[in-house]
Amino acid sequence: MRLIPGIPYRFEDPELLTQALTHRSLGRHNYERLEFLGDSILNFVVSARLYELKADNNEGELSRLRARVVRGETLAAIATGLKLSDYIRMDKGSMKSGGDKRGSILADALEAIFGAIYIDGGFEPCHSVILHICGQFIADLPEADELKDPKTRLQEWLQGQGHALPVYSLEREDGPPHKKHFQVQCVAAAAGISVTGQGSSRQKAEQAAAATALEQVSLNPGR
Amino acid sequence: MRLIPGIPYRFEDPELLTQALTHRSLGRHNYERLEFLGDSILNFVVSARLYELKADNNEGELSRLRARVVRGETLAAIATGLKLSDYIRMDKGSMKSGGDKRGSILADALEAIFGAIYIDGGFEPCHSVILHICGQFIADLPEADELKDPKTRLQEWLQGQGHALPVYSLEREDGPPHKKHFQVQCVAAAAGISVTGQGSSRQKAEQAAAATALEQVSLNPGR
Repeated sequence: MRLIPGIPYRFEDPELLTQALTHRSLGRHNYERLEFLGDSILNFVVSARLYELKADNNEGELSRLRARVVRGETLAAIATGLKLSDYIRMDKGSMKSGGDKRGSILADALEAIFGAIYIDGGFEPCHSVILHICGQFIADLPEADELKDPKTRLQEWLQGQGHALPVYSLEREDGPPHKKHFQVQCVAAAAGISVTGQGSSRQKAEQAAAATALEQVSLNPGR
Repeated sequence: MRLIPGIPYRFEDPELLTQALTHRSLGRHNYERLEFLGDSILNFVVSARLYELKADNNEGELSRLRARVVRGETLAAIATGLKLSDYIRMDKGSMKSGGDKRGSILADALEAIFGAIYIDGGFEPCHSVILHICGQFIADLPEADELKDPKTRLQEWLQGQGHALPVYSLEREDGPPHKKHFQVQCVAAAAGISVTGQGSSRQKAEQAAAATALEQVSLNPGR
């Protein structure tokens, strides 16, 4: 096989494409080394594109935008759109596993294909293919500010209003060690905020509480 | 300024080089966005070189080798060799700060220079400059195995000998919260190992204990 529909590149060496599509369950000649390489090319090509497009964003904002593009979830969705699962070779056991694991295999194989294109054809074709495949997603990215986590956004909003920082306190922690459950309270008295959040870690519970606080605030922006 | 001795690239746009050498203490037109870009190019070029050179290493080993090249310590040493500190522009306060902080500024500026070369001249010259500057360090890297942390190496050695895994236990923890001190014991009875290690975190103390165990083992490999 020399090409995959939707990926505008024809391989000189079809073995490279085969390797990029071979899961480690089929032995040593698998996609993992190519994935290592492809991941770093993807990271660079996306960084360069964001640098160009987002002249007003600082390096922290650029990092957040990049993370949104190169994370497994995004790559798995792109790989699914390309129907990569029709081409991936793995043993029957791995084939049956579904869900997240399958998504991450698709994402890995997509990165490996980028790596294989670089080895087969060099930087320019690889660069074009990545922008062809990810360009629309990059163009449609939300503003960098919207990608901040809820705690950061809440803190910035409070500071903007001249209020003190919110105080998070643990209200409850239960469940067995492998399945903990946390409940956290978030209070910003001056802004009239007192909400709770829950999650499988203290950090997640705090983020959930902050997200609830932000909802309240956007419903009642004058408070 | 269009060039820096030791970096074989002449800038079309000297402003880009100036920006790459400007610390954020001098305002918004600083090296941080270029550093974001340069970091990702460096990562890719080093990955591609390691992929070529280290055909027998798997992706985990390649990652460890890459980390050794792109870490701040290595880049600061390279930047020092290039006398970058003679060219960096920052305010007087930042100028006086020494040591680690200064090293990390040098490393950041070096990455920013790589980013500036990419913007000024494209991928090929940037690729050549990175290999010119880092190639020797890459060629001189130790074997991937030697870069594993002591706990991993001890575990692998014990498994290779058919022994059980080592047991780490906390012997002492003292000092104020900002300056904790830990002492850990590491026991692998079947191999006759019982040593202690100390450090500012439990993890560091365990690694120190494992390092001591590995020294014992290499002095008495037959045990």
